[in-house]
Amino acid sequence: MTRPVLLTGASGALGRQLAPALAAAGLTLRLTDIAPFPDALAANASFTRADLEDGVAILRLAEGCGTIVHFGGVSVERPFEEVLGPNIRGLYHIYEAARREGARVVFASSNHTIGFHERKVTLDADCPFRPDGFYGLSKAYGELMGRLYWDKHGVENVNLRIGSSFPRPVDSRMLSTWLSYADLCRLVLRCILAESTGHAVIWGASDNSRTWWRRDHRGRIGWAPADTADVFAAELEGKLSGNPVSERYQGGAFCAIEYSRKEPSPADPFAD
Amino acid sequence: MTRPVLLTGASGALGRQLAPALAAAGLTLRLTDIAPFPDALAANASFTRADLEDGVAILRLAEGCGTIVHFGGVSVERPFEEVLGPNIRGLYHIYEAARREGARVVFASSNHTIGFHERKVTLDADCPFRPDGFYGLSKAYGELMGRLYWDKHGVENVNLRIGSSFPRPVDSRMLSTWLSYADLCRLVLRCILAESTGHAVIWGASDNSRTWWRRDHRGRIGWAPADTADVFAAELEGKLSGNPVSERYQGGAFCAIEYSRKEPSPADPFAD
Amino acid sequence: MTRPVLLTGASGALGRQLAPALAAAGLTLRLTDIAPFPDALAANASFTRADLEDGVAILRLAEGCGTIVHFGGVSVERPFEEVLGPNIRGLYHIYEAARREGARVVFASSNHTIGFHERKVTLDADCPFRPDGFYGLSKAYGELMGRLYWDKHGVENVNLRIGSSFPRPVDSRMLSTWLSYADLCRLVLRCILAESTGHAVIWGASDNSRTWWRRDHRGRIGWAPADTADVFAAELEGKLSGNPVSERYQGGAFCAIEYSRKEPSPADPFAD
Amino acid sequence: MTRPVLLTGASGALGRQLAPALAAAGLTLRLTDIAPFPDALAANASFTRADLEDGVAILRLAEGCGTIVHFGGVSVERPFEEVLGPNIRGLYHIYEAARREGARVVFASSNHTIGFHERKVTLDADCPFRPDGFYGLSKAYGELMGRLYWDKHGVENVNLRIGSSFPRPVDSRMLSTWLSYADLCRLVLRCILAESTGHAVIWGASDNSRTWWRRDHRGRIGWAPADTADVFAAELEGKLSGNPVSERYQGGAFCAIEYSRKEPSPADPFAD
Amino acid sequence: MTRPVLLTGASGALGRQLAPALAAAGLTLRLTDIAPFPDALAANASFTRADLEDGVAILRLAEGCGTIVHFGGVSVERPFEEVLGPNIRGLYHIYEAARREGARVVFASSNHTIGFHERKVTLDADCPFRPDGFYGLSKAYGELMGRLYWDKHGVENVNLRIGSSFPRPVDSRMLSTWLSYADLCRLVLRCILAESTGHAVIWGASDNSRTWWRRDHRGRIGWAPADTADVFAAELEGKLSGNPVSERYQGGAFCAIEYSRKEPSPADPFAD
Amino acid sequence: MTRPVLLTGASGALGRQLAPALAAAGLTLRLTDIAPFPDALAANASFTRADLEDGVAILRLAEGCGTIVHFGGVSVERPFEEVLGPNIRGLYHIYEAARREGARVVFASSNHTIGFHERKVTLDADCPFRPDGFYGLSKAYGELMGRLYWDKHGVENVNLRIGSSFPRPVDSRMLSTWLSYADLCRLVLRCILAESTGHAVIWGASDNSRTWWRRDHRGRIGWAPADTADVFAAELEGKLSGNPVSERYQGGAFCAIEYSRKEPSPADPFAD
Repeated sequence: MTRPVLLTGASGALGRQLAPALAAAGLTLRLTDIAPFPDALAANASFTRADLEDGVAILRLAEGCGTIVHFGGVSVERPFEEVLGPNIRGLYHIYEAARREGARVVFASSNHTIGFHERKVTLDADCPFRPDGFYGLSKAYGELMGRLYWDKHGVENVNLRIGSSFPRPVDSRMLSTWLSYADLCRLVLRCILAESTGHAVIWGASDNSRTWWRRDHRGRIGWAPADTADVFAAELEGKLSGNPVSERYQGGAFCAIEYSRKEPSPADPFAD
Repeated sequence: MTRPVLLTGASGALGRQLAPALAAAGLTLRLTDIAPFPDALAANASFTRADLEDGVAILRLAEGCGTIVHFGGVSVERPFEEVLGPNIRGLYHIYEAARREGARVVFASSNHTIGFHERKVTLDADCPFRPDGFYGLSKAYGELMGRLYWDKHGVENVNLRIGSSFPRPVDSRMLSTWLSYADLCRLVLRCILAESTGHAVIWGASDNSRTWWRRDHRGRIGWAPADTADVFAAELEGKLSGNPVSERYQGGAFCAIEYSRKEPSPADPFAD
Repeated sequence: MTRPVLLTGASGALGRQLAPALAAAGLTLRLTDIAPFPDALAANASFTRADLEDGVAILRLAEGCGTIVHFGGVSVERPFEEVLGPNIRGLYHIYEAARREGARVVFASSNHTIGFHERKVTLDADCPFRPDGFYGLSKAYGELMGRLYWDKHGVENVNLRIGSSFPRPVDSRMLSTWLSYADLCRLVLRCILAESTGHAVIWGASDNSRTWWRRDHRGRIGWAPADTADVFAAELEGKLSGNPVSERYQGGAFCAIEYSRKEPSPADPFAD
Repeated sequence: MTRPVLLTGASGALGRQLAPALAAAGLTLRLTDIAPFPDALAANASFTRADLEDGVAILRLAEGCGTIVHFGGVSVERPFEEVLGPNIRGLYHIYEAARREGARVVFASSNHTIGFHERKVTLDADCPFRPDGFYGLSKAYGELMGRLYWDKHGVENVNLRIGSSFPRPVDSRMLSTWLSYADLCRLVLRCILAESTGHAVIWGASDNSRTWWRRDHRGRIGWAPADTADVFAAELEGKLSGNPVSERYQGGAFCAIEYSRKEPSPADPFAD
Repeated sequence: MTRPVLLTGASGALGRQLAPALAAAGLTLRLTDIAPFPDALAANASFTRADLEDGVAILRLAEGCGTIVHFGGVSVERPFEEVLGPNIRGLYHIYEAARREGARVVFASSNHTIGFHERKVTLDADCPFRPDGFYGLSKAYGELMGRLYWDKHGVENVNLRIGSSFPRPVDSRMLSTWLSYADLCRLVLRCILAESTGHAVIWGASDNSRTWWRRDHRGRIGWAPADTADVFAAELEGKLSGNPVSERYQGGAFCAIEYSRKEPSPADPFAD
Repeated sequence: MTRPVLLTGASGALGRQLAPALAAAGLTLRLTDIAPFPDALAANASFTRADLEDGVAILRLAEGCGTIVHFGGVSVERPFEEVLGPNIRGLYHIYEAARREGARVVFASSNHTIGFHERKVTLDADCPFRPDGFYGLSKAYGELMGRLYWDKHGVENVNLRIGSSFPRPVDSRMLSTWLSYADLCRLVLRCILAESTGHAVIWGASDNSRTWWRRDHRGRIGWAPADTADVFAAELEGKLSGNPVSERYQGGAFCAIEYSRKEPSPADPFAD
């Protein structure tokens, strides 16, 4: 695995964790973001400012890369028009680049692709999508584009359904969804180094006993989380949102944004 | 069911079948398309030219409607940028309109959302998406937006995974996928008239004994096809494409467009 | 009057006066601006960043509101292209939202809609428009869109021809045009609370004895100014601009921007 | 008056009447339109295809012209977004061109600027605007831009509030509003040849005894209509639209498009 | 030379000559244009509609090609804004594609890159550019982009400064500039088949004794014209334009478009 | 020379040198930039924020000016799409403005128009262009647009091929290319004041004995540099980049950006 790694979204919160960690692992890094990179660059890293919507520029940036770690784009719920450019068009540019290079994509997908599943069910990675907003919908689109490029062009891609990656968990929900920065960095590193991945989906969470997520493709890449939110349980388990929609669904507060149903949607889509 | 029906894509091949059929059923119709409507208008139908990308205009057009039959947009495989505007942005406008009106969406989805499933497997409607191009991907996105609007806002929507809707089948593949115009019109009429639908997915095919598709939500709306491609079997069963990719997959020729894999992708996404 | 109030331009100078004043009056407020809201939010207020040019987002933001207080957009003279998007297209989105909601519009119009009337004449609110720049022209357009939506759809709207709303008057002209912040806030509150307004035009000035403005629709809403610029007269009456165009016309310095006439235009448009 | 005349909208119905008439009067003509000119060119006329939205191209096209006869843009009611580009931005380009050249603008305004006045009142040209749609609103904007450029830059402009200019009247309303092609051509010719016009507004109608329009600036240019719709009265006076909104207002059918009021708006804007 | 050839502008006048000629030479052809291809396709040719401004689509279309014969874009003098997209942005896409593929570019440049040289001088291919309009300027830009991609990336390119390629010459100027269709086809074929070209510039004219052009790089590719305009001399040499600017300069009528100089520019740029 | 001077790019590093220097010379200045002007304004200077892509605004800003000193736009190597708007479209607006005003253009061209000439050759100003990136290519385009407007419209323009204009030279290369701020200011002043210039090209460098540049049109304007980089030679001559591409070519580090050739391109374009 000697080809350079392109990391998009390098100037974001997670990108700034990944950049030094991947550099420390000896990888040659090309960092990019629409915002300047605020940190010191490692010796084996370079930074180029670019817009994900400029396809020809993105394709050029990816030349010679063996992996594209795609953490760029909008990462919270925003109006549709703000999501469309970076997360839909931008994603297409990433996949075209990967196809051209024979590169693997490591994609920052999200639990918000399945956020409208209830917390009381435990999900395997091949569960139906239940996006909880325009952001989650764009991430589901991203996973399916990965599926398309795998089926049609053999482009490998690992879709990380990241739960809540923060320095530490801060509320009850994160006891189920927290992904420590260290686990994130090890996960991405394994995604890069694994011999082959095919089209894979992996839950991006630490080893939390309250998890809602179960079977996925982590075996393919040889990763297991080392951290756990459990040590924060006593402190946080009473820290609820107070919003019944948030508390019912795995997507939490994202589900509640502009929620307008009187009653929850029925659980079983085949309930005729 | 007395509120008017908005039919997008009215000037297309299927729209021109639906417009007179729905009008004959006594529905009040608002037809729209970016191209002029080439046929005579029924007494209970009006036509307004509009662009699916003009959201405020689409929302206005839908005012007071109880159903939006959304057959507009790009309906074949095209470069990504040609699909994005009508099929992604345009779809969002349709769903915003439906949410505003409390209207139901009847969506012309496509078998190309699942085109990379092999022909040898039989699929239920809750099978994983396997889009076979940018067009199919946009339709999968549309189904998931329907899922989102159902879960978050209670917007009902029926997603018709249309096989091949033509005057008659013309090759071997259509013996499995053909949907007669008469079956299509009855199907859409039932989608409009059904008391409730929730988020439903229905295979849009006639009663073809060679079908690859099985369980779906047709029971909810009370529809069953009356026609069959079987009567064309003798004539067409030897009429193959000659392309092994087309013949392997349910999506047929769409799968083969720019196909660049050396070997087919493995069947089971969980095969670690 | 219990429906929420949408306030656009909340992060601007006048928006920041209105937001706490309207909140203190017990109204439920939705604040929006393209720039972040720099102040603390009242308990009954929320803020959503949005672009006036994104029509579907604006329509969504206005859902359920009973009044739209529209202070957003460009508020000084700028090149045409900078005015067009926020003040023409954005205004259309506001009126579409109001029509959809059956809401009233309170519109920050401007004395610059009539700025080319000479100071020596006293104007009633139904005087002809005499815009003094692209900004003033956009505000006249806004008043006429209000007229259209009233005539065609019954959308009520109050057009406030604001003079000079600053903490205190700072030159001779403002002895005629000053609107104190307190008078502004009371005026907008009355516009919201008045039982009915129809299409109204009100001069936005305090009780200045040197005013150039007379009859308007303030009676409909039950407002009269409480402050006056007169107390600043001794200090400011000699503080002239020195520019004869500015001093001749009610619009002041805006009239002089790129003014290129050799002689003033004749006063009477019917002087054949 | 020897400088060339630029005629926009030359390929439209009225442009094709004006082009040969003005050429026959000995004027040097530059014709332009976004569509090709379908007729034979007179010896003193040239045609250049151009888009009104391309400002620098329009400014170049107008170089050296003494008059711009502006009949280009959208001329019927259309969704807002279709009107904005040609009729708002395009108009600005026309006025910038006129200012640069010291040219006069002859503007195809419309009765739809005042369409929501009732038929029972008779209007002078300085009556308040009452636009009846986005088209009429764009024309009111155009008249006010003319006012601005006159007041600020001394650009002369004549605003022709055209009634119904067709080969012959075809319904009862046109007995009041018809403008014969011959009267139109004479009117525009006088607008070009008049020594000075200032900012003028003229009702564009033939000498119809059922007119709703009275005083205007025609005296300044020395024009009076020679034709009349009266000769069609017996044939047409019973030919009503059947729509009470259309019949109540001067704008006719344009007023009725998407009209959603329960009751007519009150007549007097000062009725507190 | 077995890799496919991408031909842009295939549906234009010259493209329609080249497509069958290159196919007849046994080359595998990918044809593209923004307009449909109106002719029958050869067995070894395919056609894909595409827009030169869609960079990612163009890059995809060129995959695997060994030569890009770039005849697409605007081919006559047009307003700047109409030239910018296809001829400047589009050209960039072509060169990025060529760089990615290690392909050679055969570029339809034009005599209008040097049109403001006087007819009385004879030019070598390394003469200074003297573009005669926005079109010619875009072609000079194209030649220089070829120079850049050669110097920086080793992309070979042959720039054909086409004179007048028509079925036959039709005026006196073409006795100097005519390029027969047969000579054009042989020239492009040699550009494709030549072993190496570097950055080359070749006058695209038949063997006309009245030529204004002399030394170029045709030796590198082994081409010499077989036809001549001389046989039309008796018929055409008196057929002058009558315009002194056209007659003075090599660019002919293009030089005269909007020409506004009082006197010709001096010949020697170093004449201090 | 009493007409005002328009200076674009006024807020940039060189603009901030030129603004006070030209003001001190008694010229009336109109400054413009897309960024605010950070310095105090001289009495005879005004500043207007504007976007070079807004053509009609730029044309207005230039009204009455006798010279446009065009230092605006992108001034370093950037992706193509970032260069296109300001440096290609923006430049066109500058030349249209100059043509309209009969003004002279003083253009900040660059040594990067000829950056791929080797350092071992000495160049005259009429040497072939050898741009070293998209930036340099945009500047070559700018010089050729100057040539076009001179030949077709008689617009005078002086193209300053600026070397390295910084407070002091900082590496070995700048011993050849440095242009002191004082020399720059005197040069631009002479360009403005010279009686006539035609289309001129001048090397923008101080009197450096290690220069690579020789003959140009400085004689026409009566300028000679007063400063020299030679005094920094001892300190800087060992300060090399360490990159062989940078060291080989006059454009230095710009040539090395994404350079992908295995061997340098051959020197002589006529080497068949």
